[in-house]
Amino acid sequence: MATRDDLSDYIIAPDPDARRLTRAVAGVDHTGAPVDIRVIEERPLTIYLNRQEIVTAMTIGDYPEYLALGFLRNQGMLKDGEEIIGVDYDEEVETVVVRTVGETTYEDKLKKKTRTSGCAVGTVFGDMMEGLEGVTLPRTPVRTSWLYALAQKINRTPSLYLTAGAIHGTVLCRQDRPLVYMEDVGRHNAVDKIAGWMLSERVPAADKILYTTGRLTSEMVIKTAMMGIPVLASRSGFTAWGVEIARQVGLTVIGRMRGRRFVCLSGAERLVRDADPASVPEEDRKHRRKGAAS
Amino acid sequence: MATRDDLSDYIIAPDPDARRLTRAVAGVDHTGAPVDIRVIEERPLTIYLNRQEIVTAMTIGDYPEYLALGFLRNQGMLKDGEEIIGVDYDEEVETVVVRTVGETTYEDKLKKKTRTSGCAVGTVFGDMMEGLEGVTLPRTPVRTSWLYALAQKINRTPSLYLTAGAIHGTVLCRQDRPLVYMEDVGRHNAVDKIAGWMLSERVPAADKILYTTGRLTSEMVIKTAMMGIPVLASRSGFTAWGVEIARQVGLTVIGRMRGRRFVCLSGAERLVRDADPASVPEEDRKHRRKGAAS
Repeated sequence: MATRDDLSDYIIAPDPDARRLTRAVAGVDHTGAPVDIRVIEERPLTIYLNRQEIVTAMTIGDYPEYLALGFLRNQGMLKDGEEIIGVDYDEEVETVVVRTVGETTYEDKLKKKTRTSGCAVGTVFGDMMEGLEGVTLPRTPVRTSWLYALAQKINRTPSLYLTAGAIHGTVLCRQDRPLVYMEDVGRHNAVDKIAGWMLSERVPAADKILYTTGRLTSEMVIKTAMMGIPVLASRSGFTAWGVEIARQVGLTVIGRMRGRRFVCLSGAERLVRDADPASVPEEDRKHRRKGAAS
Repeated sequence: MATRDDLSDYIIAPDPDARRLTRAVAGVDHTGAPVDIRVIEERPLTIYLNRQEIVTAMTIGDYPEYLALGFLRNQGMLKDGEEIIGVDYDEEVETVVVRTVGETTYEDKLKKKTRTSGCAVGTVFGDMMEGLEGVTLPRTPVRTSWLYALAQKINRTPSLYLTAGAIHGTVLCRQDRPLVYMEDVGRHNAVDKIAGWMLSERVPAADKILYTTGRLTSEMVIKTAMMGIPVLASRSGFTAWGVEIARQVGLTVIGRMRGRRFVCLSGAERLVRDADPASVPEEDRKHRRKGAAS
């Protein structure tokens, strides 16, 4: 069970009792007996950049402004230092409009390309990879004692996942302290909400660690790098291209973190081994997932 | 361990030893000792519909043609009975072009809308929901004995997940027999590959069951309905909107399937309880995930 100390670290913690985020739904169980279970709400949110409709995202709906800001930033549609003059969420029509001072470079590019590509998100893929060229993340060291402490605190934090079993979480951390824990039905939404929070609150990235429950795919690595965060950790596995991109931008990726064990496939030079792994408890079996041995 | 009988059901089974799908990567473990682990390959695949670029998807790269076909179909960009004249995969430039006889309704719509929307995938969201209006899935009964048998066979099938721990699987089944097991870094890719296979091989949907490892989100439910499959099952949880859409189209959704237990929140009238739940073994602890109790 989480102690008061664990939860007091958080600036934003999950709110598993948030009535607005879950709904009671009636059905039957395996014996045919009627049951009522709480399930996660999921709503479409259409994101605009000025007058340009960009995408409709499915979200649990807790932080629509952060989601829109972070999504646009992580897709490279908002540049570093872009002057954002407003983020307008209209709950009734389920839209968010992010407004900038002038037209963005992205909108300008889109006008020129409208006859050749149908999907903004598809088009910017190449732009994102270009945007990462020449990027080298700051060489902030990371202590293994912090990683172990974070994993333990995060595992003990009550979350919507534990309540309704349907979503992914990502946590922004500093040293051994989890700060902002975001969840959503789409894992990338959780990351984008963190990016939006950081942009909104003008939070520096160089001293941060991103901890996620899911796979370290190329998309996760790209977003982390776009956010300027030099360390990414997960209990799950890697993809080869995620590792390649991490090495290209100098990102430390730590995966398969369970109990005392982990694997580091990039940026191991940041690691300061100040914890004796033997002093870290082996993982509690109830946290194990299928395939944990591999 | 999977028996020969378990694997012989499959038309397409995962190939965990496929060298092309994984790569050995060197790194260090928690003690600092050098390790070599196999990680999943992930490649961008750009999908075109005739001359229109649609999206770039990250995929493990095993079935690019099925992925392209199924993606376009599940987004509603290819209609029922669309005349597809070719699916051309170019490995060097990592693109697939799906060619139809005439211009598709989708391309026509896109031309008219190019000044108002930037993302094809965002725009078609509304189209997809419209496309589901009036849809009622066939009333094929589903026996609980089939569901239990499927879950057991699928859990025992060696997969890339067990080898490299980084991907999701979805399995097309008929009665108690798993037929096509697709995996990918993105769960929706796995589903799209199944849809592409069904389209390519002209496989009927009314007598099929879709089993997935992940959450029963609105997107999963929409794709299953677009594919014409009346039953969707998962060990994971639901979202409220996924359930709403399922009820609207008459889809049976079964979630939280673990051992003998499950919850059905839509389409329970299809269920034929021919298995005694007490005769089904409780779930092996090693298959449990965090939050399994809820």
